[in-house]
Parts: sequence; C-alpha cells; structure tokens
Amino acid sequence: MSNAVYELLTLDNVVFKEYLFWSAVLILKMLIMSPMTGFHRFRTQTFANPEDLLSKKLKVKFDDPHVERVRRAHRNDLENILPFFAIGFFYVLINPSVFLACNLFRLFAIARIVHTFVYAVVVIPQPARFLAFGAGLLPSLYMGLQVLLATF
Amino acid sequence: MSNAVYELLTLDNVVFKEYLFWSAVLILKMLIMSPMTGFHRFRTQTFANPEDLLSKKLKVKFDDPHVERVRRAHRNDLENILPFFAIGFFYVLINPSVFLACNLFRLFAIARIVHTFVYAVVVIPQPARFLAFGAGLLPSLYMGLQVLLATF
Amino acid sequence: MSNAVYELLTLDNVVFKEYLFWSAVLILKMLIMSPMTGFHRFRTQTFANPEDLLSKKLKVKFDDPHVERVRRAHRNDLENILPFFAIGFFYVLINPSVFLACNLFRLFAIARIVHTFVYAVVVIPQPARFLAFGAGLLPSLYMGLQVLLATF
Repeated sequence: MSNAVYELLTLDNVVFKEYLFWSAVLILKMLIMSPMTGFHRFRTQTFANPEDLLSKKLKVKFDDPHVERVRRAHRNDLENILPFFAIGFFYVLINPSVFLACNLFRLFAIARIVHTFVYAVVVIPQPARFLAFGAGLLPSLYMGLQVLLATF
Repeated sequence: MSNAVYELLTLDNVVFKEYLFWSAVLILKMLIMSPMTGFHRFRTQTFANPEDLLSKKLKVKFDDPHVERVRRAHRNDLENILPFFAIGFFYVLINPSVFLACNLFRLFAIARIVHTFVYAVVVIPQPARFLAFGAGLLPSLYMGLQVLLATF
Repeated sequence: MSNAVYELLTLDNVVFKEYLFWSAVLILKMLIMSPMTGFHRFRTQTFANPEDLLSKKLKVKFDDPHVERVRRAHRNDLENILPFFAIGFFYVLINPSVFLACNLFRLFAIARIVHTFVYAVVVIPQPARFLAFGAGLLPSLYMGLQVLLATF
C-alpha cells in the first residue's frame, strides 16, 4: 500500500463509497430526531422555553417522558454516530479489507437504526436496545484500534 | 466527473474553500458556547459540581434559566453543526454546482449564527428561532439526500 | 505550497499521521464513556427508562451524582473532542509547521484525557478541571482561527 492515502478517496474504492452511503443514511436518520422531538413537544405541549409556549396558560416543562425519551435517543446518536463519521473516514484511509470494512459499516448503520427504533419509536423490552447499542459500539472500537495500530 | 474525488480537495475548488471557511466560522462560534455557559454560571453562581463551588455557603444547582438556555442552544449546535462538518465534506466530494453549494453553506452558517443569537444572546419571540433552525436543517437534509443518491 | 491540499493526506506527512493517531486515541477515550456511565448506572441502580429496571421495586431515577458526573464529562467531550476531528483535519490541510501542529495535537489530546480523569475518574479539586479544559480549548481556537485566515 502506498502512503499517499488520498488515492483511496475515489468512488471506485468500494470501501469509501460504502462509507459515504451509510454515513449519508445516518446523517438523515439523525437529523430526523429533531423534528421527532418537536412532534412530541407539540403533542404533549411540553416546551422548554417561555417564548415557545403556545398559550398563556402553559408553563415551561422539562419532564415529559416521551419528549425525554426521544432526546435520550438523540443524545446517544451524538455520542456514537458523530464519532463514526471520523473513525469510519480514518479507517477508509488505512485501506482495510473490502469485505470486512463494508460489513462493519453496514453493521454499525443498521445497529444504530435499530437502536433508534427500539428506543424512541416502538419501545421494545431489553435487551433489544442493549444489543443494538453494542452492535454499534463494537465496530467503532475495532476501527479505532486499527487506526491506532496503523499510525502508532 | 472523474471518480477520483480527492482531486476536489484543492483550494482552487471554490466549493471546498467555501466549505472550509464557513466550517471554521462555525467551529469558532460553537467553541464560544462553553465560555458563554461559564460566564452565566459565575454570574448566577450556578455550579453543577461540588468542587466548583466558590463558597461553602453555595450548593450545586442545575436549574438557572440563563445557564440552561445557553446549554440548550449549545446542544442544538451539537445536533446540527457537527453533522454539517461531515455532510458538507461529503457534499464537496460529489462535485456539486458551485453556485448552489456555496449558497447552501452560507445559508446554513448564517442560519446557525442567527439561531444562537435569538436563542442565547437576545431572546427574540418565535418564530425567529424556529425559522433559523429550519434554515439550517433544510440545507443539511438536501445535502444528505444528494450524497445518498450519488453513492447509492 | 500547492493548492492541491489532498497531497497532504499521506502517511509520509508527519502532521497528518500525528492527527490520525491522536484522533484514534480520543475516539477510543470517548467511546469508553458510555460503558463508564453504564457501570455507574448498574452500581447505583439508576436507570432512566422503565424497560431498563432490573427489578419491579425500582423506579426510573435521573439524579445519581456519579452517573450525572460521568454524563457531564461525556457531554463536555461531545462539545470539544468532536469539533477537534473537523478542525484538526482542516488544520492539516493548510499545511502548518510540523513542530507546532504536532504539539497542538498532543496538547489537546493529553488535556482531554486529563479532563476526563479529574472530572469523572478521581475528582481532583479545581482548578484541575478548569486548566485541562482550557488547555484543550486554546489549541482548538487557534486552529480554527488559522483555518479561517487561510481560507478568507
């Protein structure tokens, strides 16, 4: 492998294209969390700012369980999907096995979609969320370790 | 367009340079949120950790409205500006129209600066924040979709 | 310097390699925060979702000081380490001095590791956390400014 890793940034590189595709999917999934929070805020009339109150009879409210559930799912995305954009990109640049890399990206993306579904759309009993979380965390940890070893 | 998208990563590519410029602006805007939170914490003596208390008479406190307002604005930045760094970069790599791309970056960046201003600096009645939020979300969704279609 | 900044994305570029290495370290550090939160949730039986409760006698709970401390440290990582992945990458692309860039990356990474340690592992009196936070913020601000000036 050449050290000129920028040569890997081509759409002919299946690994890079797969990374871009799943990253775009996850960006869109994440961005939908805000409107989803907004939906539950309106439905339950739970607003965190005085200027958001639709009627003078309402007061700010922070503890609606549906709103907070979506917010926890969203925060979990920030903690896991955002690092993936970085570590997935770095992993592309160390020129991994096509088969392994593509499946790691798929596993991560599907795990995160399932995580949102069982957490914030239809609550499914544990260990559903725990398994989805773990299936997202492990590929990230593995890619982080591989990049670490390749650049040590 | 060549598939060797790394060739787009040059400062002669107006789209990439515009992306870098507005990203740097937004990084600096975001980083200022922490000192802004700190300012309100000191002003209102609202500290979340026992080791932060400046006097033995104080207790930890989590509900100051000014501190929480800046923290909500900051969290909204995490949810929107951080994904932009990824999706804006991917969008550069699919070689979009210069005119459209530059204006999407400008719209996003200005919308996010306005969002912070009307949320956490001078509170301006709705729909100011709602419009600023939407004007940031739509370019992100559009870019996400374009990257998805280009890599499908 | 050529405008074709992609040529800097090679493992022969010490600055880029250093960026990749410390970024991988910080990704791994950040990802450990979730299991650390989980550890304290189990230890103190503090669960935020009804479906997580291990026994029918438990209720959801949001105010355990150990859990909340790790969560605050984790959120501080989101606010500071995630922007670093973007700004550090942009900074590599403006071809900075090798000596300065490598030391900025090291300073940032070590500051953030110390920040987690004194915040969430062994609580050390202030100004320990304040100094660690500042030693992470200053390199980020400096790199942001340099990228801004280089792309203005």
